[in-house]
This record gives sequence, structure tokens and C-alpha cells, in this order.
Amino acid sequence: MAALTYRDAGVDIDLKAEMIEGIGELVKRTFTPGVMHELGAYGGMMSGLFPHLKEPVLVATNDGVGTKVRTAVRAGKVRGLGHDIVNHCVNDALVQGAQPLFFLDYFAANKLDAQIFQEVIAGMCEACRLAGAALLGGETAEMPGVYAAGEFDVVGFLVGVVEKAKIWPRHVGAGDVLVGVRSNGLHTNGFSLVNRLIERDALDVHADPGGLGETLADALLRPHRSYLEPVRQLAHVLDGQSPGIQSPGIQSPGIQSLGIHALAHITGGGIQDNLPRVLPAGVGAEVDRAAWTPNPIFRFLLERTGMARDEAYHVLNMGCGLIVVVARGSEAQAVATLREAGEEAWVIGRLVAGEGVRFTR
Amino acid sequence: MAALTYRDAGVDIDLKAEMIEGIGELVKRTFTPGVMHELGAYGGMMSGLFPHLKEPVLVATNDGVGTKVRTAVRAGKVRGLGHDIVNHCVNDALVQGAQPLFFLDYFAANKLDAQIFQEVIAGMCEACRLAGAALLGGETAEMPGVYAAGEFDVVGFLVGVVEKAKIWPRHVGAGDVLVGVRSNGLHTNGFSLVNRLIERDALDVHADPGGLGETLADALLRPHRSYLEPVRQLAHVLDGQSPGIQSPGIQSPGIQSLGIHALAHITGGGIQDNLPRVLPAGVGAEVDRAAWTPNPIFRFLLERTGMARDEAYHVLNMGCGLIVVVARGSEAQAVATLREAGEEAWVIGRLVAGEGVRFTR
Repeated sequence: MAALTYRDAGVDIDLKAEMIEGIGELVKRTFTPGVMHELGAYGGMMSGLFPHLKEPVLVATNDGVGTKVRTAVRAGKVRGLGHDIVNHCVNDALVQGAQPLFFLDYFAANKLDAQIFQEVIAGMCEACRLAGAALLGGETAEMPGVYAAGEFDVVGFLVGVVEKAKIWPRHVGAGDVLVGVRSNGLHTNGFSLVNRLIERDALDVHADPGGLGETLADALLRPHRSYLEPVRQLAHVLDGQSPGIQSPGIQSPGIQSLGIHALAHITGGGIQDNLPRVLPAGVGAEVDRAAWTPNPIFRFLLERTGMARDEAYHVLNMGCGLIVVVARGSEAQAVATLREAGEEAWVIGRLVAGEGVRFTR
Repeated sequence: MAALTYRDAGVDIDLKAEMIEGIGELVKRTFTPGVMHELGAYGGMMSGLFPHLKEPVLVATNDGVGTKVRTAVRAGKVRGLGHDIVNHCVNDALVQGAQPLFFLDYFAANKLDAQIFQEVIAGMCEACRLAGAALLGGETAEMPGVYAAGEFDVVGFLVGVVEKAKIWPRHVGAGDVLVGVRSNGLHTNGFSLVNRLIERDALDVHADPGGLGETLADALLRPHRSYLEPVRQLAHVLDGQSPGIQSPGIQSPGIQSLGIHALAHITGGGIQDNLPRVLPAGVGAEVDRAAWTPNPIFRFLLERTGMARDEAYHVLNMGCGLIVVVARGSEAQAVATLREAGEEAWVIGRLVAGEGVRFTR
């Protein structure tokens, strides 16, 4: 009987080593002053001294891009996936007030493809640099049989840091106002449905199926938007702080109930699933869905799938990627500041005594 | 045309929410005093104050269990996978001297199966408690089409902390002695080959194929061994420290060149791939493979696959899961201490001027 080698079993250790070597320079360019390891170490290392913080708190989060990978491969545009996963994690840490410190990635495939891998990692490195997160490490795996032919997964882990007294949510209560910030599309949610629809209707992703004003691929694959910069600016204006960083010389307002009380990242489900995560017991929300118009891609999906409107708001962001909960009286300044920072923002509702989210329209 | 719902597309958001709720109590039991978040938060939170350390350094690492998932599913024994992934990460952080702080998991499947999920997470929680790592968060994803039918992936991410002056490797040089510590089998490496062999030869994993003294499933699925406790004891004896923690009242030896200089976790490849990761330029190693006998499972694999001996040492741990690099003169005490801690350990070679690993036998 012929010998069975590791390569016969579908695993090419040398290719993997080459691929990882190929991204070394990109990874190094994400390094921030706290990074303390050399490439190739078992673990990435970063200084755990935060001299600008009195009581530093580490915030850790992880996520995957889900079946958006399939849509991206179909369209031949995978670079955005790297931005997707970094920005998704950045937003999840941001809602607790954390400034990104470092990121690690996991990339696994039925069969490693050097070009796809390098595109995805290049996108990650770009997003890491924009967020100020060092790409501290990662794992690359070839798993024949576990992944379907031609498929792969992209997963990320992010650790950030925040001053304990500045953690969001804080001082949330009935009367607070909800400011919605536009998403740039599906972000990383709803792609199992999208893929099913593309297959069922044999859609050409490189064409505008009507009403999008761009190709289906462009509308679907725009990377998950990072809200780090606009929130930083908003916190600076409303709270006199940057998330995770106390700006020297700028004191927090004496009345703590002014400013940002909480953020909800609308992901892995809709507003009804995410907003309650940052509300205390006995506090519910009223949201007016007429306060904004979903991006064309959502209208397209609803029409094509025949999905009920309520289900769509249950599983998708429907054009609102972030909700900022602000003290009553701060909403006009919040909306103005977010608009100055380049975001589209609207007052979409308020907090009330009660529980859960009720749509008023 | 019938409406297309999210559930039609193969994703069940409610089942996922139930599954995650079901593990809440297990997860909470891993919480250490530094944990600061409630379940359901966007990010896990842990205090970033380390009052017992002068210059804390965060060590971050991530990994997957690879195609061991397929072997485990075939054998109907998935709980060990949770231990596998935690211990793998614990060892990777340990080689730099880090004490585990927290762990996050990623579990993704073609179709979520509540029982498999809960078994794997239960194993993770057990291993986290043993390591003193809080299970700070995780992500669970249903990805029809990306994963093959019946398949799933288990990925982990761990952050630990170490005193800057205590980071390994340090003071590594020619003349140092290599102490090998037994693995309890393949750990998490080589399973693509194993799965191929099982399929090719239609092996019954519930039987002893001959010479193992246990079933093939038992020999293959024993979880990745954690070396945290034995290394802690060794560091205590040789260096007067615990990894990541300066024991009060016990001073480091004045002569820094005594004691542990480095650790190499033999994973993701063999000794030749891993040992050089902790050696400075101009320092190579001589290893005597006759100093220990590979576990029966390795002999079985080599015989059955016809794999060349050199290839096997290139891709598998071959019975040596950890190499401890100690100062010459410390080796007898190192071996004795590891044996007292319940490990099988042997002097397997030494460092020399040169590069790479040379097998003397």
C-alpha cells in the first residue's frame, strides 16, 4: 500500500509557512509603541502598563464575518473581509468605551489559497492601522473536510482598554434620547439569506439588479463601518473625553447625567435584540422607524425575499448600525457632531419606563 | 414565489440564543475576581490592574483544534475538544512565562447542534477553571455552506500576563540543556492524516487496532496536555518564581543564568519547527531521539501510514510535548521536579553553536 503523507492528507505545512512569512511586513506596520514581541513568537506581547489610566479595564471581544465570506468569494472581492472583521470587533469594544489595543485573527480554509489569504490579511492590517490596534498574532489552518470545497472562515479577537469610571453604559434612564447612526449596508449580518437569494434567483452580483445605483456586489460587500472616530469626536464634545483615554486638561462635566450614556452596536440581530443589552431593568425604548430610510439594499432584499418587515427589523440593522443613548437635551448637539464627523444621524426615539423595544411606527 | 425567511436560509437565531443561555451558569463559574462584566455584554471585561507586577506584559495567543473535530465527532466524544483548545492556548502563553487571565471561544458549525455545543463549552469551562482563566466571551455562528455537513470548528483566544523581567526566553545560550516532557498523544496535531487513515483503512475507532492498549478513539482524543502546573512548580524550584507571578518573599537567584531559560511548546509541527522559535541567532540544538520512546499511537501511525520517520518528526510531537531549556547543571533538578509534578521527563539534548535542530540519533 502506498505511503500516506501529510500533504496527501490535504495539508501543506510549507505553503502555510511561506504565506505567513509573506505578510510579515504588513503586520509589522500595525505595531504600536506597546508591542514587545518579534514575529514568530508563540504569543504576541504588549505592555500592560497604562499610565494615563487610574483603573484600566481590559475589554475583550471576538466575532466572525459569517457567510459574508461566500458572497465575497463569489464576487471575487475578499479584501473588505479584513476590514469587516476588525471594524466589527472595534465597534463591539467601543460600545463599552474601549480604545483598541490589539487584534488577533483566525483564518481557516478547506484549502489555503495564498492570494485570498494575503488579500484578507492586507485588509485587516489596513483596518488595524486605522483603529490603532496592533495585529498581535493569528492562526492559519488548513482543514480539509471541515470546510466545504472553496470555502474559508475569517474570525477576529480584539482587546481594548477603558478607564473604569468611563465605561458605558452609565446613567441610562427613562427620558434619555436615542440617536441612530447610519450603517453602510448589511455590515456582517444577513448573508446566509443573501447567499440563498443569489442562488435561488441566479442573480448577477456584478450588475445592479435595479434601484441600488451600484452593483449588487458593491452594495453587499462594503465593509462593516467603524464608528470609532465619530464616537471619539462625540465623546470629546459631549463628555470632554475620548473613549478609553482621559484627555489631559479636559474635565468631565460635573453633572454626570449629561452626554453619552450608552452605545448599542446593531449587529448579530436587529435593534430589538441589541438595544436592550445596554438598558437597565425597568427601562424600555420607543423607536420610530420612520425617522430614517433604510439603505436601498434593505429595500431590495425585502422585496425580493418577501420577508416580513418585522422579521427584517428583528434580524438586520435596516440602515441603523449604531444607536447612541444621550441625556435629554444633548441630542441636537449629538446629531450635529456626528454629522460634522461625516456620519448620517437622526433622533430615532427615547427611553421609557418599561421593557424591550416598541416600534411606534 | 414563496417568501424566503432567515430560517429557510439555514440560520436559527432563537436556537442560538437558547443555546448560549444554557451555558451561562457554567461560564460564570470560570469567573475570577478581576471579571467586571455581566453575561450578554458586547465585550467581556477584566481589571487591567496588576498590583503584584512592576511591569506587566500582556501575552495574547490564539489557535484552533484543527481537524481533531472530525475525529471527535466520528467517535462521539467531543467534550475533550474544549480542554484541547484551552490547554493549547495555555501552553502557548506559558512558554513566554504568562499566567492565564482570560479566554474567549469561537464555535462555528454548518448547523448548530445544542448537545455538541454544550459538551464542548463544558469542557472549555472545566479547563478554564483548572488554568485560572475566566471565560470572558465567545461567538457562536451557524454558517451553512461554509462548513461541510455535520462539521464544526472550535477556536480559542487567550490573554495572560507576565512580569517583563520574567519573560522567557532569557539567557539562552550554547551549553544549555534540553529537558523533554512527554505529550499524552497527538495533542491537536496530525489529525488530517489520522482522518485520512481512518477512512482509507475503514478503522473502527472504538477498538484497539493492535498495540495501543486502549481504543483508537481514546488514544487519539486524550485532550492536549496543559503544562501550566508542572512548569509553575519547576519555575518555583529553579527560579524562585511562578510564571507571571512573583512569589512574595522568594527572590530570583542572583545569578540569572541558573534555572529555566526557555520553553518550546511542540505544536503545529515537530521539534525542528518549534525549538528554533526560542533560540537566539547562532544557537542551534542537538537532540537525541533515543532519549525517549514515542507513545504507542505514534508507532501505530508510522506503521500504518508508511510515513517516513523524518517526516513524522517534522510534523508531529512524537511523544515530546514540551522542551524546557535549562542552564547546564540544572537539568537533574529539573527532571526530578517535573517527575514529582507527575510528568515524564528526560534530558534529550543540548544547545550548541550553530543553527537549527540536528538529531544525533
